[in-house]
Amino acid sequence: MNGTARLETFSDGIFAIAATLLILDVTLSGEGTVAHQLVQAWPSYAAYAISFATLGIVWVNHHTVFTQIDKVDRTFLFINVLFLMVVAFTPFPTRVLADNLREQSKAAALVYGLTYTAMAVCYAALWFYAAKGRRLIAPTADDRLVSGISRSFRPGTLIYAIATLSALISAILAVVLYALIALFYVVESSVFGRNAEPEP
Amino acid sequence: MNGTARLETFSDGIFAIAATLLILDVTLSGEGTVAHQLVQAWPSYAAYAISFATLGIVWVNHHTVFTQIDKVDRTFLFINVLFLMVVAFTPFPTRVLADNLREQSKAAALVYGLTYTAMAVCYAALWFYAAKGRRLIAPTADDRLVSGISRSFRPGTLIYAIATLSALISAILAVVLYALIALFYVVESSVFGRNAEPEP
Amino acid sequence: MNGTARLETFSDGIFAIAATLLILDVTLSGEGTVAHQLVQAWPSYAAYAISFATLGIVWVNHHTVFTQIDKVDRTFLFINVLFLMVVAFTPFPTRVLADNLREQSKAAALVYGLTYTAMAVCYAALWFYAAKGRRLIAPTADDRLVSGISRSFRPGTLIYAIATLSALISAILAVVLYALIALFYVVESSVFGRNAEPEP
Amino acid sequence: MNGTARLETFSDGIFAIAATLLILDVTLSGEGTVAHQLVQAWPSYAAYAISFATLGIVWVNHHTVFTQIDKVDRTFLFINVLFLMVVAFTPFPTRVLADNLREQSKAAALVYGLTYTAMAVCYAALWFYAAKGRRLIAPTADDRLVSGISRSFRPGTLIYAIATLSALISAILAVVLYALIALFYVVESSVFGRNAEPEP
Repeated sequence: MNGTARLETFSDGIFAIAATLLILDVTLSGEGTVAHQLVQAWPSYAAYAISFATLGIVWVNHHTVFTQIDKVDRTFLFINVLFLMVVAFTPFPTRVLADNLREQSKAAALVYGLTYTAMAVCYAALWFYAAKGRRLIAPTADDRLVSGISRSFRPGTLIYAIATLSALISAILAVVLYALIALFYVVESSVFGRNAEPEP
Repeated sequence: MNGTARLETFSDGIFAIAATLLILDVTLSGEGTVAHQLVQAWPSYAAYAISFATLGIVWVNHHTVFTQIDKVDRTFLFINVLFLMVVAFTPFPTRVLADNLREQSKAAALVYGLTYTAMAVCYAALWFYAAKGRRLIAPTADDRLVSGISRSFRPGTLIYAIATLSALISAILAVVLYALIALFYVVESSVFGRNAEPEP
Repeated sequence: MNGTARLETFSDGIFAIAATLLILDVTLSGEGTVAHQLVQAWPSYAAYAISFATLGIVWVNHHTVFTQIDKVDRTFLFINVLFLMVVAFTPFPTRVLADNLREQSKAAALVYGLTYTAMAVCYAALWFYAAKGRRLIAPTADDRLVSGISRSFRPGTLIYAIATLSALISAILAVVLYALIALFYVVESSVFGRNAEPEP
Repeated sequence: MNGTARLETFSDGIFAIAATLLILDVTLSGEGTVAHQLVQAWPSYAAYAISFATLGIVWVNHHTVFTQIDKVDRTFLFINVLFLMVVAFTPFPTRVLADNLREQSKAAALVYGLTYTAMAVCYAALWFYAAKGRRLIAPTADDRLVSGISRSFRPGTLIYAIATLSALISAILAVVLYALIALFYVVESSVFGRNAEPEP
């Protein structure tokens, strides 16, 4: 395996497992009829869907980023460990949000947003560290694609930070924003989509 | 990795983890002797076996489908994220069914069937989107195989929808139908089986 | 990927996840000092170690078996789904054993042994189905290696069946036998060990 | 797959799953406001971060070690099964530490350190068994790199053993030492970092 393949394999495993563990936090209250409990569990479904979609998108983009990189160094590894630590952490704020969304807990919505903002910061750090002066970028990588990825990173962290701060006003508002961001990225998928088209 | 390899790796991980997490929902009640509890847990065993077999079959077929596809676009990715979201969701309805089958809960049997119907719908959407006008199909793919896969998809969603609706009449009837469908597909395995034979 | 690669990938995932999920069943009682609880949890450690070692061995041998096979058919797939269903089931009897070993529950020791006996039966069925008349064996496979694997399978199921029946006499006796079998196979590892040596 | 590839795949799976399962042990107490509970859960965050970082480092180094090895034998397999058994065990002491760090439980800090010391011992045994007389080392492996890895192993076990013994004096001291060791290895990453640079 080359310099980045083993990092990618480990990262893929973390993403797939973290996304699948999210379902363990979808549970019924045990009070009332089964039908009633199933309806009452909607915050769990919402939290599951938003987190799963977000992890799916970030995973797809993580691969795009790695296709441009052909070597790694210690600092890059350090940032990637931090990044994966946040990825594997996501089932916790998802559970906290699901358990407390009904009571519109601002703290739960805030910690959820902070986790995803931290992920966006680590992720941007990972990319900009690699891209600065084309430090770790493959010599064959297209300059326009590298610039395109850099541009697409800039708004991401800001958007998550704003959505997170909105939790101080209203938990529901923040969750709606988190859902819209996930939906936007799934529909857009611009970085990955552009790259996945077969070469002409 | 090519355009679909990274999607397949992520999908494989989701399938294997979701199938294995099903066992976490097989638990004993803690009341009575161990032997008694082990016998009483039969709904958990039944739900586990049906879900595991169904995921195994869908995973096998998912691979067959991907061998015919050689590129992906944004819409395809969007459908695949939805599909995997349903796959990773299956431990939840399995747990609900196992916990409430003894009381013959129609709601539990219904939500179980709805999940698998949603999976069948996403899965068919994934295939027909790729196959329409051979949009994402490899140029080398055999026309008859592509048509064969398309034909095999048509009854699947309908069969799951009928089994799901039967839950409104009887939870036990619905579960028996779910089991029969899984058994039929394991024994038949027509799509995969045909393809797995070595070329003459 | 060839005819067996995708099966192997899925099987590998199931093995690794089932082995790792075993740890979720190691828990403390919450009664007494932490030191006391840690000592009292010895049945959990024993059950974890035996199950982990057994899965590790079976996984290693599963790979050896697959190196001799170069095609699959529907019946083989059917047996492999059953086999993996038993593999992914193992965390349940492990938990039952850990929770009830202190009370020397024969039922718990019996269900543990029955699971591993079922695994041995499915596994032997998988091999003998493939090996009969060299049905699915690669043309290049060495006849002596194929016969050697067949021979090594014969005692396995019998040994597990005897250990399982001993649970009717004493739970502790059965667990000691399960541990000895696992230890024997780890130390011996004859099938894999022989095959892993580089060709001369 | 060659002689070590299947071992590496299984090991990768165990590492990624064990690291991700750590999050299941981060839970809220359910007492007080959500914000209060989130703050009170700091021992869980600390235990999660230290364990995740440590597993990440060991995984990275495990790969470096395997790049120098080109064959395996029975004893090596036996040691590797023991090693992975300890790796997959780590979520348990992490949970014990998180649940009892607030009370400064020396037993919890001790069992946490003992687990990581056992991992360091198994890991060193794995390497020195392979490296002794270049028993399993690839003929192409650079002598200086092999000696370098051997040197880097020597202090590791000792450092973990000292940190573990410090738990007998103070749980907090031990945890601070565990964190410093993890931080040191992430920042240093000397074995992997040196090896990951592209060849000149």
